[in-house]
Amino acid sequence: MIAVSEALERILAGLRPTGAETVALPDGWGRVLARPVAARLTQPPVDVSAMDGYALRAAEATLGARLRLAGASPAGRPFTEALRPGEAVRIFTGGALPPGADAILLQEDARAEDGHVTPTEAPRAGRWIRRAGLDFRLGDVLLQPGRRLSARDVGLAAAANHPWLHVHRRPRVAILATGDEIVLPGEALPPGGIVSSNAHALSALVRAAGAEPLVLPIAGDDRAAIGASAEAAAGCDLIVTTGGASVGEHDLVQSALEPLGFSLDFWKIAMRPGKPLIWGGLRGAPLLGLPGNPVSAIVCAVVFLVPALRRLSGLPAAPVETRSALLGRPLEANDRRQDYLRAELSRDTQGRQVVTPFPVQDSSMLATLARADALVVRAPGAPAAGANTEVEFVELSFLGV
Amino acid sequence: MIAVSEALERILAGLRPTGAETVALPDGWGRVLARPVAARLTQPPVDVSAMDGYALRAAEATLGARLRLAGASPAGRPFTEALRPGEAVRIFTGGALPPGADAILLQEDARAEDGHVTPTEAPRAGRWIRRAGLDFRLGDVLLQPGRRLSARDVGLAAAANHPWLHVHRRPRVAILATGDEIVLPGEALPPGGIVSSNAHALSALVRAAGAEPLVLPIAGDDRAAIGASAEAAAGCDLIVTTGGASVGEHDLVQSALEPLGFSLDFWKIAMRPGKPLIWGGLRGAPLLGLPGNPVSAIVCAVVFLVPALRRLSGLPAAPVETRSALLGRPLEANDRRQDYLRAELSRDTQGRQVVTPFPVQDSSMLATLARADALVVRAPGAPAAGANTEVEFVELSFLGV
Repeated sequence: MIAVSEALERILAGLRPTGAETVALPDGWGRVLARPVAARLTQPPVDVSAMDGYALRAAEATLGARLRLAGASPAGRPFTEALRPGEAVRIFTGGALPPGADAILLQEDARAEDGHVTPTEAPRAGRWIRRAGLDFRLGDVLLQPGRRLSARDVGLAAAANHPWLHVHRRPRVAILATGDEIVLPGEALPPGGIVSSNAHALSALVRAAGAEPLVLPIAGDDRAAIGASAEAAAGCDLIVTTGGASVGEHDLVQSALEPLGFSLDFWKIAMRPGKPLIWGGLRGAPLLGLPGNPVSAIVCAVVFLVPALRRLSGLPAAPVETRSALLGRPLEANDRRQDYLRAELSRDTQGRQVVTPFPVQDSSMLATLARADALVVRAPGAPAAGANTEVEFVELSFLGV
Repeated sequence: MIAVSEALERILAGLRPTGAETVALPDGWGRVLARPVAARLTQPPVDVSAMDGYALRAAEATLGARLRLAGASPAGRPFTEALRPGEAVRIFTGGALPPGADAILLQEDARAEDGHVTPTEAPRAGRWIRRAGLDFRLGDVLLQPGRRLSARDVGLAAAANHPWLHVHRRPRVAILATGDEIVLPGEALPPGGIVSSNAHALSALVRAAGAEPLVLPIAGDDRAAIGASAEAAAGCDLIVTTGGASVGEHDLVQSALEPLGFSLDFWKIAMRPGKPLIWGGLRGAPLLGLPGNPVSAIVCAVVFLVPALRRLSGLPAAPVETRSALLGRPLEANDRRQDYLRAELSRDTQGRQVVTPFPVQDSSMLATLARADALVVRAPGAPAAGANTEVEFVELSFLGV
């Protein structure tokens, strides 16, 4: 059995980000940038007004002065003549400052009549002027590769005049569920049968991580069937199997794949739920074998598959992020396996975040997992912890999982 | 000017969730459930083993006893005959407990030879048995309407034997950017021109919230053009405009829409950035008019559009969630407008979360907004706050925004 951290390091070390593809700007949302986005213009391109009012010279705009209105400078239609002495120009938010002007008289501080304007409050030179390049300058790198693009990033790339973006191709992930006992939802259920849930949960998790799932037909507990399905995964960036990872007589994934050239890296991890976990390679494609138990499969997917998908997508190699909160009930000392306890989040009377593990943690309880907000992480050999101790947890909703 | 909270209440009160549609199970991820998902079976359907080992009677399984192996009960192929005295059955994780058995002898606690098994450790009755219905029972409501489906929920619905789900239709949201000065990214940029970024950022935000954007062609500052674009929004669940929301001479949205039957609810909010915000209705469709300034538009979208989209999607009416952290630098007392300060998140030396507003908060700085992790919320009239004071913030990455 190897430690969770070592297993994750070995998994991440075996993965390379996908190549770049070119997508239209609106399709960039949620994708990971493969090439930098540099500004193709300076924003604002010239000095502009931050408010509606009048552009003028501060030195002339004394209380009661009467300045002739020479024109208007709305956003998009700059007034390009130089301001002559005694003149002002009507200006609007985003409008270009006319040459010669050095101040903005706010419209609520002005009285306008007969083509003239009179300050009722003296403006200060430079105030309410946005200088050219305040937001960004031509050539500035605004977005770096390896960043998942937010809605704001898409807006920024647009503002920097990019109709196209270069992003990492979505990783293609084959998902193979194995087991004689599982059938597709809605199909006739034989005695002892279980409806297949892992492939569908994992497919959703793969989509949540921005990758593309390929759900293969269920393979029975039969070497030939597993082998044939694995062939169908050719060309994928990652193969994920579920079931058949341990060494019982009915656990066949490893033995089915060996004749096809499967090379095993490791297959046992000191964690709960989820001890049997296969990591290896099949004809150049990395293969992650998750346990068949639905709760173990999803917890292992959060811990190993999510970071793997991120790495393949072009994000930095890193474990899934944890937060800390106060423990809602005491926990016994942990044994040598890293524990991931299904838990609820709440607030205490002082508004502090509390994370409370469910009392029953049986790894077959999918309804409990679906209800959980968080997985409390308990390190191997962690001592008993009292209520209100600070503990680390993975927030599940944060991942769309 | 009305308060942010009142504005949000009025917006949410005017919205109804979309109707239901039927989607295949894998398309349910991220959608909001419209009808309950009740279990169509009991899981596990019978008592099953939680481990690989031998099913037997605890009373007979004394140390050194020799029990005859009567057969095997792997997952999916139950051994259905009753266990006779002196018998054991090979069993695997998930395998049905044969009638008469009351205990599981773990395989590591057993010695098997010549069709017999001998305990090397005495098993305890009931241990390692998962009772029928431990996960859920036929008819249990597992997922309630009004819940956005996680990957785990999809797995749970699958396990409960649902190949189809009934979810709220994705809200259709028309997005109309107005302004003579804006052009599409990559198009020729006239003097004083600005590349349109709002529609693209808002379109991404709409997708991030699980709704469907309809980006209308840009309308110039011209009543007829705005009116024609608004007609193109017919059939949408929400119309979002950007630009033209204030009362300057070049702000035309309200006056362009009035002849088309626009009814205004309010249009000024005590917040910064983002004072001018239109809320009203156009021929039965709610209309949200965001400011033209990109930072104001996105901040207003986080505060008002995200909750509106959630409500339309079938989620409960609620403001966007906030968290609290320690302030990274002192802030002056606030005036009468609710402030949303662009800020970075970090950890202090004790590992506590710190949120630090950027020193320059000009509402034209889109690059700063894209860099921000959070918006620190400052209530109207909030007193000066020292570093390390606890403050509320909206976490932007959490929203995919």
